[in-house]
Amino acid sequence: MTPAPGSAAQTVQPVHGTRLDPWIGAYADRTHGMRASEIRALFAVANRPEVVSLAGGMPNLAGLPLDAIAESTQRLVATRGLTALQYGSGQGDERLREQILEVMRLEGIDAHPDDVVVTTGSQQALDLVTRLFVNPGDVVVAEAPSYVGALGVFRAYQADIVHVPLDEHGLVPEALEEALTRLRAEGRPVKLLYTVPNFHNPAGVTLSLERRPRVLEIARRHGVLVVEDNPYGLLGFSGDPLPAMRSMEDDGVIYLGSFSKTFAPGYRIGWAVAPHAVREKLVLASESAILCPSNASQLSISTYLENHDWRGQIKQFREMYRERRDAMIGALSEHIPSATWTVPDGGFYTWVRLPDGLDAQAMLPRAITALVAYVSGTAFYADGQGADHMRLSFCYPTPERIREGVRRLASVVDAERELVDIFGTAVARENRIVESPEPDLA
Amino acid sequence: MTPAPGSAAQTVQPVHGTRLDPWIGAYADRTHGMRASEIRALFAVANRPEVVSLAGGMPNLAGLPLDAIAESTQRLVATRGLTALQYGSGQGDERLREQILEVMRLEGIDAHPDDVVVTTGSQQALDLVTRLFVNPGDVVVAEAPSYVGALGVFRAYQADIVHVPLDEHGLVPEALEEALTRLRAEGRPVKLLYTVPNFHNPAGVTLSLERRPRVLEIARRHGVLVVEDNPYGLLGFSGDPLPAMRSMEDDGVIYLGSFSKTFAPGYRIGWAVAPHAVREKLVLASESAILCPSNASQLSISTYLENHDWRGQIKQFREMYRERRDAMIGALSEHIPSATWTVPDGGFYTWVRLPDGLDAQAMLPRAITALVAYVSGTAFYADGQGADHMRLSFCYPTPERIREGVRRLASVVDAERELVDIFGTAVARENRIVESPEPDLA
Repeated sequence: MTPAPGSAAQTVQPVHGTRLDPWIGAYADRTHGMRASEIRALFAVANRPEVVSLAGGMPNLAGLPLDAIAESTQRLVATRGLTALQYGSGQGDERLREQILEVMRLEGIDAHPDDVVVTTGSQQALDLVTRLFVNPGDVVVAEAPSYVGALGVFRAYQADIVHVPLDEHGLVPEALEEALTRLRAEGRPVKLLYTVPNFHNPAGVTLSLERRPRVLEIARRHGVLVVEDNPYGLLGFSGDPLPAMRSMEDDGVIYLGSFSKTFAPGYRIGWAVAPHAVREKLVLASESAILCPSNASQLSISTYLENHDWRGQIKQFREMYRERRDAMIGALSEHIPSATWTVPDGGFYTWVRLPDGLDAQAMLPRAITALVAYVSGTAFYADGQGADHMRLSFCYPTPERIREGVRRLASVVDAERELVDIFGTAVARENRIVESPEPDLA
Repeated sequence: MTPAPGSAAQTVQPVHGTRLDPWIGAYADRTHGMRASEIRALFAVANRPEVVSLAGGMPNLAGLPLDAIAESTQRLVATRGLTALQYGSGQGDERLREQILEVMRLEGIDAHPDDVVVTTGSQQALDLVTRLFVNPGDVVVAEAPSYVGALGVFRAYQADIVHVPLDEHGLVPEALEEALTRLRAEGRPVKLLYTVPNFHNPAGVTLSLERRPRVLEIARRHGVLVVEDNPYGLLGFSGDPLPAMRSMEDDGVIYLGSFSKTFAPGYRIGWAVAPHAVREKLVLASESAILCPSNASQLSISTYLENHDWRGQIKQFREMYRERRDAMIGALSEHIPSATWTVPDGGFYTWVRLPDGLDAQAMLPRAITALVAYVSGTAFYADGQGADHMRLSFCYPTPERIREGVRRLASVVDAERELVDIFGTAVARENRIVESPEPDLA
């Protein structure tokens, strides 16, 4: 039986805004593991104007032609308002799904509009895929490190997350083979391999062309569905995009795409491309979750793709982010030579290994005090690893602010190193609150 | 172990678009119960222009001031585009949450902006609430009949749905007391009481003022959280709105609201008001599911509420829907006097009991052939009941089309009654495909 929630609350009259929860006994098992991500706890502080935030993943939208977008949105509502403001289909607007095919063709994907399911950001696509496949205790294999928002979804469905290392060429096939073989021997059901092949969040690395078919072959042989999460693929700083894994295999890959980084996140429009039978179930799951994606958002994006030089806009974004990457890497070389880092060839992030003995999580409150924010590497592991790394993002601040941020960070790192030199590693590490991974920054 | 999905598919090369599913062995348990709702199967057919659809729940948007909305959307993107097109907070835009309080004040709800969580339609709010509370096998109590989209959500989380009858005054308190007492005696954990108190979908009835505190008291005493789903509350045809259940109790009610029927569904913006601790978990669950609701949609609605006479617009909607309700009820009296129906005092639906011996599900293909569509009552029960009822909606077609639709329906009913008179009830009933509740209309 559900315990009567009022038993305490009825004698002690519950106060508005109290932290007491009369429903504490009623939550589902999956709810108990829920917690704010480290990134979320950080945002309230990192958004203060005096802080240089190298923490967030917000794209820089300053280059968008807002007046022209405003104009075409006005026309959309005036001429097609009865459609834009109405319910739509659960799978998504057909014209937009055709346009999504054009976008994906840039990475070699050949698909049919029927294969595409439009979602409320690719985050929802990931939530739905996990919902379809993962029973509590099933294994999801993810890179070490992996996208914090994906780890949150897998935890929400009570998956066991098993990490497989990556190196400068992305996920290591030999390590994947070994992990899947071991998991099979242990009798543990592996449902998904989750990977961000291009300009990895947080690691900044890209799965090499040579490794892509090898990873696919290993996954296929072990009967594991690959979830290829690709929000950054078109934001490379040199050369053409690599072919997507989905371009090499149809039936073993669910591809997740997004307009959040190549256009704008405020519409919350992403998509999944899935094998036929899976796609049908994705639509059913999405209808259960939200009925249908927003027609207003979908038609706004469709209109943008129709009326604007979206390829030129992406090119402009690439150049802007490359300049910021250069500012970040230059400043790291100049100010924190004792650290090492990846040099991303696209995307938003570099992954910085701190000098020996430093702990990114313990150091964070001191960085905030010095008015610079980053995300501790621990956010990107399901198992408490990562304190020797931090993720620095170069997407949102200007190059000037990036350099200033890295300078501030350098002073914090230098102070930490002095402490470590005097007191040894242990002191710094003991400052970490291991039980409660979100630093209390409020 | 996951069975290797390729074992069959690799020898028989999978054909694009085939119905064979190489991942059939990999789905989670919750996925196996997933199926298209009866309503969905219907939509493809019901949307043909020659069919009068009394099936759908699409609001009629013809009265919206589209040019003015287009204009203010243009200004929004031109002047606040960098916010509207960016990520927002997981809980939703603060100004919009304040405006939502103004809307809810019309039903006597006194809350704080912190209590509100903005969602992708109220459907997402229902999905998140169920996610937070329902383990597989937990009981959700719902009216008999109940909203088909809610039943789908409860099924997706593997809830056991227990129906409690309603009558012309809404949910029957004595029946609720009896059901909860019985469930407690059986040791079955009841997590939620799901109710649509105003202008019920599909039943068209309203929970009387006198019953509201009684239902709340029973739920509280049994430790059951009430989910008050209220998309239609402001669309009453006479008098002021009844006070919401949430206005009578804060800690035992999660209130779900929506702009889909009072403004426009195309933005997919709804909300939940929940007790403090539950609200925090709702935000975490929503961030996991979609990161954040669409800023573009939220600010569009906020701008509409700011710049337009939204109360006047709702009044106009009420008058339009009342006229359609009158057309529907008048036509039923004239053409199908052998049936009985509820006379809704608001909302979109009337619930029609067919003459004895007729089966709404069996009759549906013949109705479609006669170019009129409805939803069989079976869609609104978790347990196969409801074939003696159908839901007729009067929201979308014009009064003229409604009358024409009912005339067509009358001819189908008359033909069915002749069949029943000749062959008896059994024949009609045996036509039903009980195993597969969605009629194959394609």
